[in-house]
Parts: sequence; structure tokens; C-alpha cells
Amino acid sequence: MDVNNTLLTGVKPNQDGSRAATLRTRRGEVQLPTFMPDGTRGVVKSLTAEQVAGTGVQVVLANTYHLHLQPGEATVKKLGGLHGFGKWQGPILTDSGGFQVFSLSKLRKITEEGVTFKHPVTGEMRLITPESSMQIQLELGSDMIVAFDHLTGLDETEGGKTLEAFERTHRWLERCVTEFKRLTADMPASERPILFGVVQGGLDLELRRKSLELVQGSDVGGIAIGGLSVGETKEEMYRVLEFLSPLYDNSARPRFLLGVGDPPDIRYAIEHGIDMLDCVLPTRNARHATVWVEGDEKIHLTNAKFTEDTEVIDPGCDCYTCANGYSRGFLRHQFKVGEPLAGSLCSIHNLRYLTRICEEYRS
Amino acid sequence: MDVNNTLLTGVKPNQDGSRAATLRTRRGEVQLPTFMPDGTRGVVKSLTAEQVAGTGVQVVLANTYHLHLQPGEATVKKLGGLHGFGKWQGPILTDSGGFQVFSLSKLRKITEEGVTFKHPVTGEMRLITPESSMQIQLELGSDMIVAFDHLTGLDETEGGKTLEAFERTHRWLERCVTEFKRLTADMPASERPILFGVVQGGLDLELRRKSLELVQGSDVGGIAIGGLSVGETKEEMYRVLEFLSPLYDNSARPRFLLGVGDPPDIRYAIEHGIDMLDCVLPTRNARHATVWVEGDEKIHLTNAKFTEDTEVIDPGCDCYTCANGYSRGFLRHQFKVGEPLAGSLCSIHNLRYLTRICEEYRS
Repeated sequence: MDVNNTLLTGVKPNQDGSRAATLRTRRGEVQLPTFMPDGTRGVVKSLTAEQVAGTGVQVVLANTYHLHLQPGEATVKKLGGLHGFGKWQGPILTDSGGFQVFSLSKLRKITEEGVTFKHPVTGEMRLITPESSMQIQLELGSDMIVAFDHLTGLDETEGGKTLEAFERTHRWLERCVTEFKRLTADMPASERPILFGVVQGGLDLELRRKSLELVQGSDVGGIAIGGLSVGETKEEMYRVLEFLSPLYDNSARPRFLLGVGDPPDIRYAIEHGIDMLDCVLPTRNARHATVWVEGDEKIHLTNAKFTEDTEVIDPGCDCYTCANGYSRGFLRHQFKVGEPLAGSLCSIHNLRYLTRICEEYRS
Repeated sequence: MDVNNTLLTGVKPNQDGSRAATLRTRRGEVQLPTFMPDGTRGVVKSLTAEQVAGTGVQVVLANTYHLHLQPGEATVKKLGGLHGFGKWQGPILTDSGGFQVFSLSKLRKITEEGVTFKHPVTGEMRLITPESSMQIQLELGSDMIVAFDHLTGLDETEGGKTLEAFERTHRWLERCVTEFKRLTADMPASERPILFGVVQGGLDLELRRKSLELVQGSDVGGIAIGGLSVGETKEEMYRVLEFLSPLYDNSARPRFLLGVGDPPDIRYAIEHGIDMLDCVLPTRNARHATVWVEGDEKIHLTNAKFTEDTEVIDPGCDCYTCANGYSRGFLRHQFKVGEPLAGSLCSIHNLRYLTRICEEYRS
């Protein structure tokens, strides 16, 4: 696929196993590696698009499942698509909705057609299929979209469930590719979103190998690694990432690890060939007063020892919050009285922390 | 008092009864008339100081009562005073704590010494006196401070209570002035905060006249009108403001109406000689999805009719939120899913709305 082969330019391998590159999307270039915060409801929680951009973040992720349920992709489209909606002007990546359907919906039924689940608010039954996931993501106006896959939990490895999910994921991938081609047939190549296929296989290395081969052999613009950071140990996750790293082909396609945001994991993944990562961790931690400081240490700002601490979160940090001198004592107070500004300021700090990690691999 | 007589410069009366002027504070000039948002806990809720400044707001108010209880003025001072704490670099005005002691504390006892009340969190008994109110406000680092007064509710007019409160307020004012002079004796005149005396008297016009005379005869830098917007009708409030308007003397002192923030009331007050106003209304309304649009109309953004509304809050508005094109449909969605960004964006809009009203009287 010609277009897909020109998505990555300036690929430079580093000694540590990482690589720097530039990803071309229909909404501008992205410097890789890159960390993408989750804008679950269409915006990164409590931050303006301008505040997010100020952290150096280049891509924001939005959740197909949540936006499909509320306000619905038709409404988002009428309000200008995701970019007109939340005013983030850089590239946006949407997930497939698969992860949320499997992790949040208690009443769900998986058939070859797709997944039927109960709407958590209205109670009506909804069906998401590989085809409708493609349709929803395109309707939302996403620049990078993810194939709808069958995710299995770590507790579902008995009775060949991992194999069954693996096989279904690949049948569904073919349906996603077909539907994606149909939906984008009239678009000039430069205006097409990038479709990521998802590698599954749980902790079974042979299934992972086959899955990667199948995804790399498909007509997709990006390779996503799914089914990790779902409850397994770090060692188990690292083993899969290490196993996959020599198996990536030389096609100019970005590699996206879903749902990973802890600094040591980000470093490990990037040094094993990953280009893109997303996670709710930096913003969720921030809202709970937990911030990273140099050396990947976590500090909890509600701790009483910070009551009169005049120091910024991290004296070496160049984020808006630290550069403007907001003290740990001030932030502690605002958290203690339930003032949401504290969570916003700490979200900015944590996003800058992760973005700076990525920037180190680019230079 | 020489210093007080040079606080206001460029006083220009308008045809409509309002006046434009420049107020000199130790932290820069303020263009009058001006609306001051409430930063109850040391910051305007959910907004950075930069976002507040972007609305054109020049002065932020902080609540002495709340900050005294948590984290305490000693902690605020160690964290750099209110300016170092919340990073607002313009002038800050603190109230006396009196209003909250009277309105929020159920267990309170008023003596000539001061007011004893129960700490709402620790349960210990606390005493605030005219002297300690001055000390707390100076310790917080405020640029404009308010005398500690005896406020009576509208339901407490029986048995001479309004008269009793009126008389105590003026005895307390003298104690405030004495303590203020003691505390600021070593400061160069240009570094002294401005002390506002408070006019009380409920809805009793004769008491209001005497109270204003006493305050204007005191050695204070500003005149505050208290005890309004506490549950009386608009007509009752307007009657007091109209009654007072010809009674202000010609001293170069600003007139501050406490706790008024509804646009028609702001216009009425300004056109009856008021220079400064504060209220929680614009930010509290905003957090509850209520915003002002041209003509002082209120719209409730959670209304279903805004679901697919691509229009900004007010097409004629120049606030950050409207200028950046955030649609009513987007804001409605964010309110419906509990995303705090919606309240922040609407707070910006409402503060800009009130500030623009003030600006119209300045030109």
C-alpha cells in the first residue's frame, strides 16, 4: 500500500533500541516517540486544548465507546467533529471502543457479528461490529483509528479462549480493513485517516508472533499492540514487548502500545521499538494529587509534610505549573479543599513529564 | 489623611450617575468601576491566574474566614502570601471574615470583644475580633482590607438589633482603624494596604445615613457598603443605594458594594456612585451551566435544545471561550458528563461579561 509506506519519514534508530521518526497524518506531523493523553469525553479532563498543547503533547486520544454513547457520533459531527468540538487542532486518535465494551459492560454477548452490550444509562441493547466501529470513528472525525478487536481478560485463558479471541480478532481485522477502504474510497490519499491493526494473543508468545505477522501482512497504516497493561505483571508485559521487538518488519508504519503510561514502562516500551503510547494514568493520578518528579519518583501532594513546602513540584521541570512557581504547599491546600484547579495544574505537570521522556528519545 | 486623599485620580463623572476613575493600590492601578471575582480559597475556582487576567478582571477577592480556617494565615504567609500562593499578580482584596462568621457559623456568640464560633472541621472554638481580623488580613498579604463589622440578618430587626449592630459596627471600626495604624506604622505610605470601613444599617435609611457619615468621617481609605444582597428584595436594595448616592462626600476614596453580581444590579449600583463590586454569582452560575448573554439574559446550557447548537455562548462576546469557538452543544455535553472544563470555560465567559459592563462606564 503506497500511502502507508510513506507515513514515517526520517526514521533514526538509537543505540538503546528506540527510534526517532516523523509520522505524517492528515492533520500535520507528529514527532515520534510520542505520548498521547486520553480525552475520554472529547477533551483531556479539566484542560483547555491550549493548556494541553503547552505541555508539548502532539496527539490527543478520544474514546469511541464513551462518545458513541454520549452525545453520539452524529451530534459530534454536527458540532464540527472532534476538532470543532473540543478545539484540539492537532491530530486525534480514537480507540475502537473494544476495550471499553469488554471492560465496562457487564451485560455483553460476543458473536461473530460483533458485541452486544447494555447501554449503561438508557439500558437499551447496543451492537458494535467491526464495521460500525469504523463508521463511528470516521464520523467522529478522527485522524488515526483503531481496528475493532476481541479482547480477552487474563482470567479467560482457559478452554482456548485466548486462541478464539486471537482468531476472531483477525477475522474482524479483515472486515475493518474492507469497511475502512469502502468508507475512504473517495478520499484523496492525503486526507485519509490512518488505520491501526491490533496485535493480540495475551501472554502466549507464539500467538503474539502469529498475530503480529497477520497485522503486518494486512493493509493497515499502523501496528497497535493490545491486550497488555490489563492486570498482568510488569515482567509479563516486558517479556511480550521484548519478544516482539525483533519481529517488527521494516515497513514505514508507526507502532502504538495501548494503555501504558507509567514512566519506566514507557521507557521500556520505547527501547523495544514502540513509537506511540496512551494512558489515563498521568491525568487520573494528577486528579488524585499524585505527581512524578525526577527519577520517576511519585509524590502525593496531600501528604501533611507538604503543608508549608514552598518548592514547586519538581525544581528541574519546565512545565507551566513548575515554571510559574505554584508551590507544593499551595497545591496541597487546593487538593484538601477540593479545588479542581489543583488537578488541572498537576495534569499539566504529569503530561509534561511523560512528553519530556519521549522528547529525550527524539534528539 | 493625606495618603487616602490621593488614592483616586482622574475621577470623571458620567451623565448616568456613574463615574470613571483610577485607583492606586500598592500593587498597581485599578480602572474603576471594576468587578472583582471571589477567590474564596485563594484562587478563583478552577481558573489559573492567567485565565482570570484574560477576562480583563483587575482585582481578585479572597475570603479571610476560609483562609484563616484552612490553611491558616501563617501557612499562606510562609507560602509567599496570597500573591505567592495563588500567583495572581494584581491587587487582592480580602473581606473581613465577618459575613461568613455570621452566615456560615451556626454556633456563634457575639460579645463586645468579637465573635466566638465553632470551627466547622475541628470543632474547636475560635474568636475573631476587630483586631485579629486586621492582623489576619495583613498576614495574608492583602492589598485592600475590610473592617470587621457586625452584620445582622433581615430577620433580626426586632428589639433594636439593627441599631445594636450599627452601634457595635462603629465601635469596632474605631478599633480596626487603631489596629490597622499600629500594624502599618512602619510601612512607607506607598506600601500600605487600603482599609475599607463598612456602612451598615440594614434597610433603615436614617441608620444608613448616620453609618455613612461615621465611616466617611473615619480615617479609612475606602467606603464599603455592607448588609445588602442578603435576602432583601431588589427594590429594597435599590432604595438604599439611591438614598446613599447623593450622600457620598468628595474625598478621593473608592466605594465598594459587597456581594452584588447580577448584571442589572451592577448597572444600578454603578449608576448610583459605586466603584467596585464582588460576588460569587458569575463563577457559581457558570459551574451550574448558567451564563449571561447580550441583554442580561440567562441561558442554561444543560437545556436539551442546545444539544446540537453550533453557536458560541454569545456571538457578540470577546471572551476566550466565545472567541475560540466553543459551542453551546460542546459545553452542554461536557456539563452532562460532569467535565469540569465546562465550568471553567463558562466562568471565563461570565467574568468577561461583568467586566465588559464595567468597561462601558470607563470609556
